[in-house]
Amino acid sequence: MSLLKRAELALSTHFEQAAGSGAPPRLVAAMRHAVFSGGARIRPQLCMAVATACGDDVPELTNAAAVALELMHCASLVHDDMPAFDNADTRRGLPTVHKAFSEPLALLAGDGLIVMAYKVLLQAGAHRPERLIALMDNLSTGVGLPHGIVAGQAWECETSADLGEYQRAKTGALFVSATCAGALSCGQEPAPWAPLGAYLGEAYQVADDIRDVIADAASLGKPVGQDVLHARPSSAQALGLDGAIAHFDHLIEQAASSIPACSSRDMLRHLVQLESERLVPKALCEGYFKSHPHSPTRPNTPVALATDRSSTPH
Amino acid sequence: MSLLKRAELALSTHFEQAAGSGAPPRLVAAMRHAVFSGGARIRPQLCMAVATACGDDVPELTNAAAVALELMHCASLVHDDMPAFDNADTRRGLPTVHKAFSEPLALLAGDGLIVMAYKVLLQAGAHRPERLIALMDNLSTGVGLPHGIVAGQAWECETSADLGEYQRAKTGALFVSATCAGALSCGQEPAPWAPLGAYLGEAYQVADDIRDVIADAASLGKPVGQDVLHARPSSAQALGLDGAIAHFDHLIEQAASSIPACSSRDMLRHLVQLESERLVPKALCEGYFKSHPHSPTRPNTPVALATDRSSTPH
Repeated sequence: MSLLKRAELALSTHFEQAAGSGAPPRLVAAMRHAVFSGGARIRPQLCMAVATACGDDVPELTNAAAVALELMHCASLVHDDMPAFDNADTRRGLPTVHKAFSEPLALLAGDGLIVMAYKVLLQAGAHRPERLIALMDNLSTGVGLPHGIVAGQAWECETSADLGEYQRAKTGALFVSATCAGALSCGQEPAPWAPLGAYLGEAYQVADDIRDVIADAASLGKPVGQDVLHARPSSAQALGLDGAIAHFDHLIEQAASSIPACSSRDMLRHLVQLESERLVPKALCEGYFKSHPHSPTRPNTPVALATDRSSTPH
Repeated sequence: MSLLKRAELALSTHFEQAAGSGAPPRLVAAMRHAVFSGGARIRPQLCMAVATACGDDVPELTNAAAVALELMHCASLVHDDMPAFDNADTRRGLPTVHKAFSEPLALLAGDGLIVMAYKVLLQAGAHRPERLIALMDNLSTGVGLPHGIVAGQAWECETSADLGEYQRAKTGALFVSATCAGALSCGQEPAPWAPLGAYLGEAYQVADDIRDVIADAASLGKPVGQDVLHARPSSAQALGLDGAIAHFDHLIEQAASSIPACSSRDMLRHLVQLESERLVPKALCEGYFKSHPHSPTRPNTPVALATDRSSTPH
């Protein structure tokens, strides 16, 4: 079974088990819409791949850890898409949760998914208390204060923010949680796996910035040009487009090199390369430069990495 | 030390410890505003009171459990106050979080508080893994699907909802978690303490409905008349005002009677009585009936317990 299939199967099983019966049907439908709308499942796959490298001796715990990461990711997307933030109408080519269900339900769906992430771990890990506690701690680090994805998103509301700190928290933190969770599910030290998550997470954020400039909305499945629109810190703004692409390539190299010596190293490097091409397709870059021969690839004026969105209406 | 003082001290200590250092300052300030704006701290006090009755042999775990409950409660208030729900400008006489900080920060503050609740437990309970896991499970039950406070709030978005089910989930669930957490912190069976939480929680919701009718905004510290405004299920609407007050009194009696035989039974009964008077002050009721001699105390027309807020703009 491919990692993607394993992730999808685990998500379906754990979602239904954790939702239980008797919950408000529209809330459950909103949460289902948030989770089952065609995500790439990269975080759970990453967790499962590292677990495979570490022996994967309790696969049901690995599955739960992988699911918990994806539920947290989906929760953050639901809230990020809301009018208070990106005000996005579409995600992965479908209506966002608040568009399909309502703002109140989007708000509650995000909250419900955060709690569900912990519940999934609790339901699977009670017989492995030490690993369970380590996994919950690792998950909280990736999401909460001071450096998790919630904090990362909140840097957009400060009057000044460091681009690296912002990107590490907004995207990198949950990638680090993902690789570490793979090791922790097997009762192993997570530290050797943290750099893989960190480099890959930073690469994802840079890729997101690049695609926000060069992709069209149809292929991206969500609105483009959001970083400029919301005056958000962006690598493409800070480094210029070709600088951002070079930075992305370097991060992918670093991610691949960071993989510890193990029997699954080749498989993991292959996964990193596949993701790299999926994230920033060479053809897309070439097509963009061909159709925008005079586009500035370096910023002409110094670009502020800082922004204060909190004072602007959304 | 009074339970209230113990709760406040534990909140301050655990909040700072869990926030760590280096988080976005405005996010931390928004979360602090949400937590330290003069709440009654009834859930943590209830947890601590039950723990006292159960021996309170690991007080630092009791404190963490109490804090986690209050953080979840505060998270739900922050999100409930937002424009997508109540659109409330004030809470406890102060600006709500989205008014004082911004909608994006209110959204993130709520998310951050949910994760912080788990983190507080994890930081305090690692050396008591069994109790810790039971406490986390109990907390998730009180907040998540299918019957926790997130589900309770979501019943407002359904086209039909049972008033009892709605109230049990919206308010009762976290009260049940609170009394059960007191027992679980001491490694004891939570079941005997669940009815106290359930009756008290229902009484709180009924009291909220009553005060929404008879109080003025100044004494309540938040807008009144919200149930009618938002067409929300309400005991005062369903039973009439005197019916709701009688129901409240009955619930308080049941709460007091449910307290298991223990050396702290008198202390707990006293706490319940004090809360009863604080919630629905006799003087307030008498004052209202004096100034509204012709107010309908029974509904004149059948009252729909169901509502669909999801289709109305907020």
